[in-house]
Amino acid sequence: MRAEIVSVGTEILLGQIVDTNAAELGRLFASTGVDHVFRQTVGDNLQRLVEALRLALSRSDIVVTIGGLGPTEDDITRDGVAAALDSPLVLDPALEAGLRELFERRGLVWTSSQTRQAHRPECARPIENPNGTAPGLLAMAHGKTVICLPGPRNEFVPMVKGPVAAALADLSGGGAIVSRVLRVVGIGEAALEERIQDLLDLPDVTVAPYAKVGEVHLRLTTRVAAGGQASALDPVAAAIRARLGTMVYGEDDQSLEAVVLDLMRRRGLTLVTAESLTGGMVGARFTSVDGASKVYRGGFVTYADDEKADRLGVPRLLLESPDHGAVSEAVALAMAEGAVRQTGADVAVSTTGVAGSEPLVENGVEKPSGLVYVAVAGLGPSVAVRHQHRGDRATVRARATQHAVHLLYQSLVNSGD
Amino acid sequence: MRAEIVSVGTEILLGQIVDTNAAELGRLFASTGVDHVFRQTVGDNLQRLVEALRLALSRSDIVVTIGGLGPTEDDITRDGVAAALDSPLVLDPALEAGLRELFERRGLVWTSSQTRQAHRPECARPIENPNGTAPGLLAMAHGKTVICLPGPRNEFVPMVKGPVAAALADLSGGGAIVSRVLRVVGIGEAALEERIQDLLDLPDVTVAPYAKVGEVHLRLTTRVAAGGQASALDPVAAAIRARLGTMVYGEDDQSLEAVVLDLMRRRGLTLVTAESLTGGMVGARFTSVDGASKVYRGGFVTYADDEKADRLGVPRLLLESPDHGAVSEAVALAMAEGAVRQTGADVAVSTTGVAGSEPLVENGVEKPSGLVYVAVAGLGPSVAVRHQHRGDRATVRARATQHAVHLLYQSLVNSGD
Repeated sequence: MRAEIVSVGTEILLGQIVDTNAAELGRLFASTGVDHVFRQTVGDNLQRLVEALRLALSRSDIVVTIGGLGPTEDDITRDGVAAALDSPLVLDPALEAGLRELFERRGLVWTSSQTRQAHRPECARPIENPNGTAPGLLAMAHGKTVICLPGPRNEFVPMVKGPVAAALADLSGGGAIVSRVLRVVGIGEAALEERIQDLLDLPDVTVAPYAKVGEVHLRLTTRVAAGGQASALDPVAAAIRARLGTMVYGEDDQSLEAVVLDLMRRRGLTLVTAESLTGGMVGARFTSVDGASKVYRGGFVTYADDEKADRLGVPRLLLESPDHGAVSEAVALAMAEGAVRQTGADVAVSTTGVAGSEPLVENGVEKPSGLVYVAVAGLGPSVAVRHQHRGDRATVRARATQHAVHLLYQSLVNSGD
Repeated sequence: MRAEIVSVGTEILLGQIVDTNAAELGRLFASTGVDHVFRQTVGDNLQRLVEALRLALSRSDIVVTIGGLGPTEDDITRDGVAAALDSPLVLDPALEAGLRELFERRGLVWTSSQTRQAHRPECARPIENPNGTAPGLLAMAHGKTVICLPGPRNEFVPMVKGPVAAALADLSGGGAIVSRVLRVVGIGEAALEERIQDLLDLPDVTVAPYAKVGEVHLRLTTRVAAGGQASALDPVAAAIRARLGTMVYGEDDQSLEAVVLDLMRRRGLTLVTAESLTGGMVGARFTSVDGASKVYRGGFVTYADDEKADRLGVPRLLLESPDHGAVSEAVALAMAEGAVRQTGADVAVSTTGVAGSEPLVENGVEKPSGLVYVAVAGLGPSVAVRHQHRGDRATVRARATQHAVHLLYQSLVNSGD
């Protein structure tokens, strides 16, 4: 069973709104086991809508339109569907009576243009819209199913979750597609794919990698028959975990920072941060986790060198040395160790580096743009890692933040019980 | 000149991600006067991608693909474009050398699959991608232009704003739609609209408000012939500025934090931050501005109450009093004043509040979820403001961050020369 979306609206093409409705419907297709291989987006133009609908009907079993069901002249979906299905547009007296009653109840003025919303292709029946005036439409013709839904989100979502989900479950015979995401750090997308090459072409389970900032998400997907179990995913997930070990840090919606805080909470450890180029992003990331206060006590943003010396006790000799300077392994370590010493927390993670687009000259030595050191103190011997990033200020800072959280994760795993 | 987008990615069809890239590109088409009448979305399937590309090439002058340029086997855009344009896929030695050098510099392991990213259709030339490994592609063939862009947002956006915008301006022959954005704080969207009601229906200039977190952006747009000037925007912008005064803090891409840092730099002032519920987000925002180090010295993330007392000298009597507690006006003020005292900086801004979804009980007193205090010290008498926000953890923290920067802006304007 193959479905296709046709989103209708010039405002989508102009980028004035983002098409979250189509994404919502895509998730419903996936969860009801309906294949979804094409989506088209057209503006408020009847000829182009009919062209898109004919193409969709030529290759898909189910076509769902979103938008264009309002009462104004640029709401063209009813006309387009009638033309594409060769079914005349007729006035539905029951729909008109219902609309007139609704207007009266709400104290609204009835205008003749409202009768547009009481029309439907002869072969279609209305789908009730509890949150608006435009009914949806469901047509079955020429062996195809066409569903028309209104664009306003508060009308669209309840209709998708209610009557449309029921109709799709009927059409697809009750099966579903089930997914599970393994979240991986410490290996690039290409190297990861090589390690699991033989698992990428299994008959029943699809394994797809998605690159994120400093991590990769592996999505495992399988099709489940009506009433069946998604157990086909378990052996594949287990095989990947066996190969990657602790590089698999979590599943589904678990974030790396949430996993780190959870590992620390179980071991009764407290955490502080000491940041330079990331300017608070590492602290912001930990405190984005509900319940972070059980582990995270606070942090230092030491952007100026004086702050590194005054707040964290980083030796000025290090900051002023041509062999080190603020952007150096020694200072990253001194920042993390200073943060532990100053606060009495168990563990600290630190960042220092060059985020700007220009190289930094420190004590007569040039440090290239994108050079970053991250360090962790308090879990056995202190450890620092050097990274050389490419990209603009935001990219370098995002990667530095990720590497700081990642180094802390690695240090926790390596020092684990 | 007619353009069409082909978005590539199974994750878009499955609804796992929303296609914000296509919206971004749609806005660029609009602003460069390029018609945009179709968009197609396909999964990671070569045959269907080629089908979509051939359709797009049959009816549009410019086809832009988004996504599918990574190094793995399901990254199929290069192959699809080569097939649709009948141009063989060739290995570009310069691209390969550049990639190998990048991998070496970053200390990454080179794998054979990386060479996929060094291939291009023979008729295409690469577009530099400063933030990733996959170059974009630009091909002109059969009287059509094809542009391929990578999907990750931090790579996509700079390429759209730079080389793609320049290429489109060339192709569209100079006529353009010109926009100017006035950025406004301190007034809601509806109240703002009332103040400028008479300016919303001008014949030559469109004025459209867009609500953002804690601010409103007014987009002024006019159509300009080739070689013409966008002078129609000037009197409208001047009229709005005259009505709103310093509520208009900046234009176009100027951020509130950049404007604040610029005001402080001109007055020779230095800044520190003292954050509780925002956990580093205020510091992260200031340090996102290139050149922030001229003003911003650093900050304190004092998440735990002990940290507020130990690092900032907030009196424990205040923290433990039923009349105040950590979430109170008095503590917000004490945090900002303590940050000035501890660092010798001229000015400090502070945040404290309840970000979690549950109310906080402090010293026997319940503080509702979403209650936030922000304060500024060092610009005349210290000042604190109370906000009661609604929404989830991320929303409350984003609004608190905005209000902290906003209060600092107001304080600077009110204390200005």
